[in-house]
Amino acid sequence: MKKLVNNPDVVVDEMIDGYLKAFPKLVEKVEGSGRALVAKQSLHGNGKVGIVIGGGSGHEPAFMGYIGRGMADGVAVGNIFASPPPQPIVEATEAVNQGNGVVYIYGNYAGDIMNFGMASDLADMEHDIKVESIIVRDDVASAPKREKEKRRGIAGEFFVTKVAGAASARGDDLSEVVRLTNKANESVRSMGVGLTPCALPQTGKPSFVLGENEMEIGLGHHGEPGVEKGPLQQADDVCDRLIDDILNDGDLKAGDDVAVLVNGLGSTTQMELFIMFRRVEQRLSEKQINIHRSYVGNYSTSMEMGGCSVTLMKVDEELKALIDAPAECPLYAQYE
Amino acid sequence: MKKLVNNPDVVVDEMIDGYLKAFPKLVEKVEGSGRALVAKQSLHGNGKVGIVIGGGSGHEPAFMGYIGRGMADGVAVGNIFASPPPQPIVEATEAVNQGNGVVYIYGNYAGDIMNFGMASDLADMEHDIKVESIIVRDDVASAPKREKEKRRGIAGEFFVTKVAGAASARGDDLSEVVRLTNKANESVRSMGVGLTPCALPQTGKPSFVLGENEMEIGLGHHGEPGVEKGPLQQADDVCDRLIDDILNDGDLKAGDDVAVLVNGLGSTTQMELFIMFRRVEQRLSEKQINIHRSYVGNYSTSMEMGGCSVTLMKVDEELKALIDAPAECPLYAQYE
Repeated sequence: MKKLVNNPDVVVDEMIDGYLKAFPKLVEKVEGSGRALVAKQSLHGNGKVGIVIGGGSGHEPAFMGYIGRGMADGVAVGNIFASPPPQPIVEATEAVNQGNGVVYIYGNYAGDIMNFGMASDLADMEHDIKVESIIVRDDVASAPKREKEKRRGIAGEFFVTKVAGAASARGDDLSEVVRLTNKANESVRSMGVGLTPCALPQTGKPSFVLGENEMEIGLGHHGEPGVEKGPLQQADDVCDRLIDDILNDGDLKAGDDVAVLVNGLGSTTQMELFIMFRRVEQRLSEKQINIHRSYVGNYSTSMEMGGCSVTLMKVDEELKALIDAPAECPLYAQYE
Repeated sequence: MKKLVNNPDVVVDEMIDGYLKAFPKLVEKVEGSGRALVAKQSLHGNGKVGIVIGGGSGHEPAFMGYIGRGMADGVAVGNIFASPPPQPIVEATEAVNQGNGVVYIYGNYAGDIMNFGMASDLADMEHDIKVESIIVRDDVASAPKREKEKRRGIAGEFFVTKVAGAASARGDDLSEVVRLTNKANESVRSMGVGLTPCALPQTGKPSFVLGENEMEIGLGHHGEPGVEKGPLQQADDVCDRLIDDILNDGDLKAGDDVAVLVNGLGSTTQMELFIMFRRVEQRLSEKQINIHRSYVGNYSTSMEMGGCSVTLMKVDEELKALIDAPAECPLYAQYE
């Protein structure tokens, strides 16, 4: 698989280099660090609760694109599909700490749990920073409901980060940011479909194999096995499968409001994503579930993987206000 | 090539349907029209000069994603890689007309020239609307400098639209909007590289063929032949070729300021785009050309084509102000 890279061993560092040079007014590297980046607008001594995100690379614009006003303050950048080690997480934590606590948001993966866990302990013991961790588990395909603690985090982390970032930006204290972020995390559900694989720059080999007319329902963001392989169906049928599984897992009912994200995994066109969104809207409309705000595009990718995911987050008045709050990051901006 | 579609004959209509349902507060269809969309924020009776864009589908977020505050007011949406006919262009023109003239911006393709030309005549004769047309010709690979009138329009149209939209949004009159938009158009140069083809949903067949390790320098946004096929090189070398051809074509010199767009054609990852941007910055820095503002991402795609383009626009004080102006569209937003 062809890629525009130089030395495959340093793709992440060259990406970070390009990113920092593209948005010098918005982001910077923590001094002396290789992989901890912070939003410049966050460092104004406003006493806000710090928000630190991170994870493996290859999901761009997640996670590094989501630091900025109204979103996260710092990010630790791992190698491709690999958790960052504790050091850059601690560096980001120190950089964004303003004395009122820091919240970590990351997906439910063994490496991230270990490294963010160690970073949290180090931040507490060595730097006296109080850290609360929120582990995202939105992928309903990755484990049954009775084993929700095993579920992986996928594109729904975007909504969880949005809620945390908006709450901390308006000055909520640590316990309130944690309460709202947990509420978002409990309210968000996603499910994806994979059509074509991606390849690590170092190997050039596809991450999984699917037949020429095959799709995989429930495929994970790193190519983890899904729940069903089968012939590719029409977009509406694929969408129905995702929506049904999400709705059956949750408690959405007529009159409820949701935020919707139709997320491209990398090589899927916006045309296809809007055709998928069209069906999501039809299905929710039938059930008298109201779409409060929509996001359609590449928010959390798996490099050039083909396919998409659908995310629904039930929103009440307080979550609506946070989803609607303005945000300004290098790779995502929205007005109220 | 696998795609998430229903009936391939109606992909554009289903895409538009999904788009309108995703952003009901921002965009709407012109009443009675199938393919003319307008930004709601434009219709406030503020007397602004109208900006109408359009072209074939398959380039999303261009063109339909670029209607909104600070950008275009209306868009005519064609079939995939096919110009819209005059009717939706006239419909969009009527809808955005506030009595002070309308500017058309479109790429230099035979179909667009014919259809926008006819629409311009109809708008004038039947609706008494004064229309000025600006034809974008930023692709330096598509014809030599002495035949600039033959050059195709590619991703640079984003900058031209940004300038026109910002000038009209602040209340500039028709002649001033035209002067500034022409200045942007004269100052913008792009060049692309293709790695992998895209496929029309109706045929499923790749739009061109490249070997497993081949790239094509100067490839057009619909798979039009480039200037050179050869083995895929390292990102820095590919970037140098694009930058050299752009710089040799223009008159950029030490001390100048530019806006930069590194644009993904569809399936190219943001990681690769940032690695390309890194080299653009190195090259410009060597030449003491200052980057005023950067854009990195999928701004004008060719469905799921692999590859990217680099665009430079020389900006003086008045163009800087317009590039920096805020914008709020469904598929692109920026703060000042």
